Amino acid sequence: MCLICLPDTAGRRLVLLGKIDEKPALLLVERAAFASSPEYLNAFSKSLAQINNLGTNDVYHWFMANVQHQSAHDVTEKEDSQAPDLKVNLIYPCTEKHVKKYTPQRNRFVVETKDIYDSYVRPYMKEQREAGRLNWVFNIVEGRTEQENVLYRSPNGTPDDQRFLLLPDLNWDRTTIGSLHLLALVERRDIWSVRDLRKEHVTWLREMVKHLTNVVAELYGKGGKMLKSTSTDDEQGQEGVEHDELKFYVHYQPTYYHFHIHIVHVGLEPGYTQAVGKAMGLHQVISTLDNLQSEQAGMRDLDLAYTLGEQSELWTRIFGPLKKGETPAVE
Amino acid sequence: MCLICLPDTAGRRLVLLGKIDEKPALLLVERAAFASSPEYLNAFSKSLAQINNLGTNDVYHWFMANVQHQSAHDVTEKEDSQAPDLKVNLIYPCTEKHVKKYTPQRNRFVVETKDIYDSYVRPYMKEQREAGRLNWVFNIVEGRTEQENVLYRSPNGTPDDQRFLLLPDLNWDRTTIGSLHLLALVERRDIWSVRDLRKEHVTWLREMVKHLTNVVAELYGKGGKMLKSTSTDDEQGQEGVEHDELKFYVHYQPTYYHFHIHIVHVGLEPGYTQAVGKAMGLHQVISTLDNLQSEQAGMRDLDLAYTLGEQSELWTRIFGPLKKGETPAVE
Repeated sequence: MCLICLPDTAGRRLVLLGKIDEKPALLLVERAAFASSPEYLNAFSKSLAQINNLGTNDVYHWFMANVQHQSAHDVTEKEDSQAPDLKVNLIYPCTEKHVKKYTPQRNRFVVETKDIYDSYVRPYMKEQREAGRLNWVFNIVEGRTEQENVLYRSPNGTPDDQRFLLLPDLNWDRTTIGSLHLLALVERRDIWSVRDLRKEHVTWLREMVKHLTNVVAELYGKGGKMLKSTSTDDEQGQEGVEHDELKFYVHYQPTYYHFHIHIVHVGLEPGYTQAVGKAMGLHQVISTLDNLQSEQAGMRDLDLAYTLGEQSELWTRIFGPLKKGETPAVE
Repeated sequence: MCLICLPDTAGRRLVLLGKIDEKPALLLVERAAFASSPEYLNAFSKSLAQINNLGTNDVYHWFMANVQHQSAHDVTEKEDSQAPDLKVNLIYPCTEKHVKKYTPQRNRFVVETKDIYDSYVRPYMKEQREAGRLNWVFNIVEGRTEQENVLYRSPNGTPDDQRFLLLPDLNWDRTTIGSLHLLALVERRDIWSVRDLRKEHVTWLREMVKHLTNVVAELYGKGGKMLKSTSTDDEQGQEGVEHDELKFYVHYQPTYYHFHIHIVHVGLEPGYTQAVGKAMGLHQVISTLDNLQSEQAGMRDLDLAYTLGEQSELWTRIFGPLKKGETPAVE
């Protein structure tokens, strides 16, 4: 029945247009959720077939695979041309921390008021920074590690408090323009998170967005130096990203307490990384700051709401105790 | 290898913990994107198997199905116990508008300044309202249609400008608590979108969030009257939703210009509906308003950035022309 057959940008949905009895019909196909029955889960690892290793980095291994349904178990011929149904990540050997991170947990939606921030969350952030959790960030910023990943760094002569560098996000394949995902890290160390942004930073932030847009266009825009050679037949996207195809946001809570900005292609399939309760659009943050009453006013004055897993330290040490009427043991 | 086998809340990922050579291994399995090769797409509709109709409403039909790989084409036996790989929506017969809506299109990320809002977007909204696009909303609000879907309505005696009603979102199955998605529509007609919210509305908005939280807990919380009877074996979630498992957000741009609030379970898999460039966390909006300079200041003073498809009217009539340096023909 297929007249138009197009996967959306992210390939998560197929749209098929055809005719049934001379009348137009539109078919929207999505991958189904996995079943949760114990039978299905126990049989699952046995149903993997045509497993193809894509890459390995330390304990992380990537594969594509197919599901072999029970009824097809006898079929032994494999066709290489077949499109894979599954993306599989293997962490091996894995640690307790990996298990904790990936074990599904109950989530809570919490409102961090200015008071909760000042009394508990800010001290928690300080503790994390002092425990050396940011050393890997400082190593990159100061040029000691991962320099091969740095896509751009402010040129010499840029004032210290305006310097930044640009890196690919770990989840990006570094090639597909339609799912481009970069991180801009500031070099200054006084901004731990969006909470530290004040009205006085508005001009700096606006300049940074403009600057970043230009830098990304130079790298990944039309004729950009990071694009795959156009001599090969170009897949969609390799024509490069345009200025108005970039989306800027920050995380709150972020994974690490050193201010950084996410820059993604507008076609990237949004998931938890872009969701309410995790991400805040940078344009809106800047504009909010711009409309506050004084230069010293800032994001630290607002209520910020976000999603927390019950296994997270922010839940177990701060919001969990607060819910029970206890005083969190962070100071 | 399976020790723990758990799908996440949304069933989009499987997490399997096991051992390889006595060392722990963690396997994360996700559905792969659809391939985009013409061969794959042309063969696709033929590869659907075990198609099972779940329901039909007007031109909308829902199915679950499996992919039958080529190598398994000869196998004719079907096992009913098999978990489906695909969720299929059929729109039949479909209209030109359906096709336009679902045809993948290039997206742009635009910044709507206060000036663009005042000059073009507000007049566009007015035009849409006057063209009768909101009649279906007013019909529900005024009790003429869809009253069987109304979950809650402010009691008699509530001042007109504080009244609201609660409906299930069309994408919710009305049963699965873990993916609960409701809409609160205000009855007043002077607030077309988040742009009309001013500092003077802060108290009203805070009260509404509190009120909605309680109403949802009464309906879908522990022992709530909308929960499935607990005499049947309870699937996860049927214990009901708790106060701090609800996430509130608004859309900008919204689909229709009558102020409404999205309320979802924190476990609902976030997609475009919750993404930066479409959704704004309501707590942050309220808190932003609260920190503005005057009672008359409001969201209309901010820059708001969002994603637009190139087929959308806002792009073709306003932002597309602006990009080309032309004056949009909206007034």
